[in-house]
Amino acid sequence: MSTVAEPQRPADIAEAARALEARYGTPWSAPLPAWNETLDTLLAHRSVRNYANRPLPEGTLQTLIAAAQSASTSSNLQTWSVVAVENPERKGRLAELAGGQSHVRKAPLFLVWLADLARLEAAGARSGTSVEGLHYMETLFVGMIDAALAAQNAVVALESLGMSAVYIGGIRNQPEQVAAELGLPPRVLPVFGLCVGYADEASTTQVKPRLPQAVVLHREQYDAHSQTAAINQYDEVMGEFQTSQGLSPAGWTSRSLARWRSRESLHGRDRLRDALNALGFELR
Amino acid sequence: MSTVAEPQRPADIAEAARALEARYGTPWSAPLPAWNETLDTLLAHRSVRNYANRPLPEGTLQTLIAAAQSASTSSNLQTWSVVAVENPERKGRLAELAGGQSHVRKAPLFLVWLADLARLEAAGARSGTSVEGLHYMETLFVGMIDAALAAQNAVVALESLGMSAVYIGGIRNQPEQVAAELGLPPRVLPVFGLCVGYADEASTTQVKPRLPQAVVLHREQYDAHSQTAAINQYDEVMGEFQTSQGLSPAGWTSRSLARWRSRESLHGRDRLRDALNALGFELR
Repeated sequence: MSTVAEPQRPADIAEAARALEARYGTPWSAPLPAWNETLDTLLAHRSVRNYANRPLPEGTLQTLIAAAQSASTSSNLQTWSVVAVENPERKGRLAELAGGQSHVRKAPLFLVWLADLARLEAAGARSGTSVEGLHYMETLFVGMIDAALAAQNAVVALESLGMSAVYIGGIRNQPEQVAAELGLPPRVLPVFGLCVGYADEASTTQVKPRLPQAVVLHREQYDAHSQTAAINQYDEVMGEFQTSQGLSPAGWTSRSLARWRSRESLHGRDRLRDALNALGFELR
Repeated sequence: MSTVAEPQRPADIAEAARALEARYGTPWSAPLPAWNETLDTLLAHRSVRNYANRPLPEGTLQTLIAAAQSASTSSNLQTWSVVAVENPERKGRLAELAGGQSHVRKAPLFLVWLADLARLEAAGARSGTSVEGLHYMETLFVGMIDAALAAQNAVVALESLGMSAVYIGGIRNQPEQVAAELGLPPRVLPVFGLCVGYADEASTTQVKPRLPQAVVLHREQYDAHSQTAAINQYDEVMGEFQTSQGLSPAGWTSRSLARWRSRESLHGRDRLRDALNALGFELR
């Protein structure tokens, strides 16, 4: 089964152009490349918070984890774990800890992705080996990046299977309480959650336009100066998108800045550093 | 173009079983789920460090960035950027800064993925808005997670197109020097690099087995106690894999513990916290 499609088929070209224009809310001007089903899946991503009352097929969780484990992991250390939560009461408690997000309770499957430094620490204890490197900030970063790469593979896998998901950063609002709920040992951090289910067809969402490539893609060196005009253009694109969704057309810049306005706008995550210390991360 | 394949086709079942057994080095015992080309691509991932002398097709970079931008991003803040490096001299300097990794120089494209808090900071300065939230550790975490999700989408996209890649964590060995080479403003962190190219067919690598699912996947709560037997089994699987690759059969545990043995085994990344401060991250 080859996954490489040639670009010449007119159906693919039309599909690619539609997908790219939905992603940016503007016409696509770069050369049209090869295209395939995987690119279709990637470009069509939407975060979904309304789930149908429909169970996941048998074998789904194992398939998603196999995809997740297939992602790169720094030096094959595999410094991540995941807790699959299906118990309604536990999902309800996690929904509250994440700031009252009811979709955490309503999704049939809630995955909490963990930066897990405890597994190798325990192996060191069993073999009497020093694990001094465990205590540095770098090692936590490795675990967080490992967890993120793995989770994203799971998202691509589940979307390729017709399911939907949304990441839950609110799991970092109260990390110690989440750790207690999940029985985490020290030096394991809940990085984010992920709701998984089938989208409720009655409340479909649209692909959200992103910043123009000129803003995020730099050639050879970072270009801080040419971003402003493209961001202004994006504010207009987002304003139109917000209007189409029945929201006030605030654009991107002002909405985003509201998230950083003050310590309070971090929803408790301003104390993440203290929480990390409490969870056993020295962050040297 | 539907991306959902039904599981009943015998060819798919056989393909799925082969892919899953290569990924774990053991027979697959869970129910065999639906399967499709995207799952093929995800499961077949290998990190590749030997590249053919073959240029990337026109439009490749833009396609990869479109896939990357299609990943989820916390509150649509899009706190990441990427620098695409093709200049041979610059790739050579980055290869040295990453610890003398010659594949950084030899890959036709080297992407440096950035946690970028400067873009929104600049927007705040233009509009006279407070960006106090910028200075918290949480906000850097958001940027790192955003960058990782984006990069992994790019990896899936490029592998679906028949290309290969390897992540370069060594870009964090000397972050200030990398930032200077790329002209990064304050509050932009190089999170990792990514070599992109076509694999040299003369030096193919095999799919590397991962830890059994029983080790990384927990149900409802974290299970610290039942991991040991499965890790011992994995040490045997990895020993066989290492032998097949002409390496000494050290297994996984001892090799992994060697990476954490001491401060020195972090290859300079023990000073990442100081580097972050120097790059303008207060980490409150």
